[in-house]
Amino acid sequence: MRRQLGKFTGLCQLRPMIDGNRLLTNLHALREFGRQGDGVVRRCLDAADMAARHWLVERMRDAGLDAGIDGVANVLGVSPNPGPALLLGSHSDTQPTGGWLDGALGVVCGIEVAQTLHDHPATRELAIDVASWADEESHYLGLMGSRSFCGLLDEAEIDIARNDEDHPLRTALAEQGLAKRPRFRLDSTRYTGYLEAHIEQGPWLEQAQRRIGVVTSIVGMRDLTIRVHGQQNHAGTTPMHLRQDAAQTLFAFNAQVNEAFAQLGGGDAVWTLGQLRVTPFARSIVPGMAEANLQFRAPEQARVEAMQERVFELASIFNRDGKARLEVSVFDDTANAVAMDEPLQQALAAAAEARAPGCCQYMPSGAAQDAQVLDMRMPSAMLFIPSIGGIIHDFA
Amino acid sequence: MRRQLGKFTGLCQLRPMIDGNRLLTNLHALREFGRQGDGVVRRCLDAADMAARHWLVERMRDAGLDAGIDGVANVLGVSPNPGPALLLGSHSDTQPTGGWLDGALGVVCGIEVAQTLHDHPATRELAIDVASWADEESHYLGLMGSRSFCGLLDEAEIDIARNDEDHPLRTALAEQGLAKRPRFRLDSTRYTGYLEAHIEQGPWLEQAQRRIGVVTSIVGMRDLTIRVHGQQNHAGTTPMHLRQDAAQTLFAFNAQVNEAFAQLGGGDAVWTLGQLRVTPFARSIVPGMAEANLQFRAPEQARVEAMQERVFELASIFNRDGKARLEVSVFDDTANAVAMDEPLQQALAAAAEARAPGCCQYMPSGAAQDAQVLDMRMPSAMLFIPSIGGIIHDFA
Repeated sequence: MRRQLGKFTGLCQLRPMIDGNRLLTNLHALREFGRQGDGVVRRCLDAADMAARHWLVERMRDAGLDAGIDGVANVLGVSPNPGPALLLGSHSDTQPTGGWLDGALGVVCGIEVAQTLHDHPATRELAIDVASWADEESHYLGLMGSRSFCGLLDEAEIDIARNDEDHPLRTALAEQGLAKRPRFRLDSTRYTGYLEAHIEQGPWLEQAQRRIGVVTSIVGMRDLTIRVHGQQNHAGTTPMHLRQDAAQTLFAFNAQVNEAFAQLGGGDAVWTLGQLRVTPFARSIVPGMAEANLQFRAPEQARVEAMQERVFELASIFNRDGKARLEVSVFDDTANAVAMDEPLQQALAAAAEARAPGCCQYMPSGAAQDAQVLDMRMPSAMLFIPSIGGIIHDFA
Repeated sequence: MRRQLGKFTGLCQLRPMIDGNRLLTNLHALREFGRQGDGVVRRCLDAADMAARHWLVERMRDAGLDAGIDGVANVLGVSPNPGPALLLGSHSDTQPTGGWLDGALGVVCGIEVAQTLHDHPATRELAIDVASWADEESHYLGLMGSRSFCGLLDEAEIDIARNDEDHPLRTALAEQGLAKRPRFRLDSTRYTGYLEAHIEQGPWLEQAQRRIGVVTSIVGMRDLTIRVHGQQNHAGTTPMHLRQDAAQTLFAFNAQVNEAFAQLGGGDAVWTLGQLRVTPFARSIVPGMAEANLQFRAPEQARVEAMQERVFELASIFNRDGKARLEVSVFDDTANAVAMDEPLQQALAAAAEARAPGCCQYMPSGAAQDAQVLDMRMPSAMLFIPSIGGIIHDFA
């Protein structure tokens, strides 16, 4: 633990106290950007998202950080103090129907920590940097900001990325005045670790009646595209035995994948077919083309790889029958399963136990996180806060 | 046969000859309306479809008919001669990617017959009316024109019909100047029968190397909408056993329908899931809603009814498990299975045999046809022409 945290280890003894009212005020202020009823809509690079990022820059500057927005909309606030530094962060963009805390909580918590330490003479010399990563939610390119920061994002990927409305990422960046800005890159000598607080996206903490989760690992995710090329025909005059129905072939393949993954998945893998299109999408025409994505996740990378291998095997067996032809390709293989840093986990658990005894539990993350990207470059860990209404008042 | 055809029975003895060149010239002229490469695109009420209809009115007038376009875009040319009349027709609208003959052939053949009889003193007193029905192809409302003519289409149905781009039928009618026009209605005392020539939409005639098909029956069709209401969830953090995945429920239901219909269908029924939507259509979200249409056809109406009943039964069994909920509703039940008129079938077969011995075969129609609507009001029959390239030269 001492190895990782260096000069931060004495922090607990100093007992600096965050300002709960300020934290709440900032969370509510951030909520107003893109607010829709109880929820918030800030898709990466939309007007609300960018306004929120500019507001975050100001809050970081208030906390004594040298803050700005980079060429992929990352917000980074860098402490003027020399390293080793701790990097705190999360993401302020949201899903199309986003909750108002989600990643925003982690960003605002990071700023609050920086502000608190900055305000106290005993801790002013500690280096705390804060980030709000761009597009964690895959509006254009999943985990874009953290991957860019860690040197894991090529210009070519940015060139081809488009959102669901087919709007190019490059155009969106230009529209927000970011086209010419450089991208922030990790200074590998500076950081001793990365910490991220995030709302838990699952039901586990609430069910266990715990208030803090220390994340042990982040699942690996793989996203495949399955395309079926069949034969478009009139739905009235083409007998069943002469059809090459792309949709029915896809359904049959899905059934085989379900069976195989139920065996391979070991109880804690998940898989989802979240998008599906049939072409030409006409009531009286046998679909000539069907396309779906198959996304799956497992806690260990080896299991993710085995599941993918099985899909390709099944497709090749399917294609031997000579009817509609299956084509499987990898859409996204960037989010590998990772274990969080053990000393940092222990430090987080110890701090939680000191403040709120018995309220903490260790748990894996089923969702992809910026922390799994950062983990490739520095020791990283995450805190989960239960996703129940009213929990925010515990912070106050 | 005499009962049905009355004064038309002597026609074969008079041996009037159609003008093959004129027929071909008219087919090629009609092809230019909406031509796209080798195909034709004339969706009901689009500019090309309406231009074609105005052109058809002129050709009908040339053939001595009192012709016009009605309030749902039907073209009807009425002979000035008193009945009993024969009604000849088909449809000049096309699918989104239409062949150039399809129904156009039947309309132009009807005009050619009217013109030929009109041109000869011995046959000038025969009453031949010709129709091009609107929207056989279901751009707004399937079999709209023939249903309207036969008094089987309510104003309320017209009120709510929209095309795939959500454009209201009423608006389209107004845009084409048809809003205030009355709809042509069948004079039930006038007609002795309805005859329709149409390109065969299946492979049977070509496979059997026959040049003419006499249609024995038209399949009944039913189109159901299947909606699944599940629970939208995060695809990473929701364990498989807690999911109510609307898409997977739909796939499982589809498998049961396949099994049931394979038993009930008796080898000549067909069924198709041509449209399918999942909501919210996001890679990382378990679908909360899935919707598909299930269209099926069988040669006898009793089988169509049994298949529908089975779908409702299966859905109610499915819904007992208490997970994602299936909701089945009837989208279209207007096309009932019908047997074509036997005396008219025999007359068509005899005429075909006289002209081209051994080239004719009896066959069912797997596709819905305007003739199945007309059959509710008068004895009706259909001729099929094989859908192979070059067959048009046989007409010449």
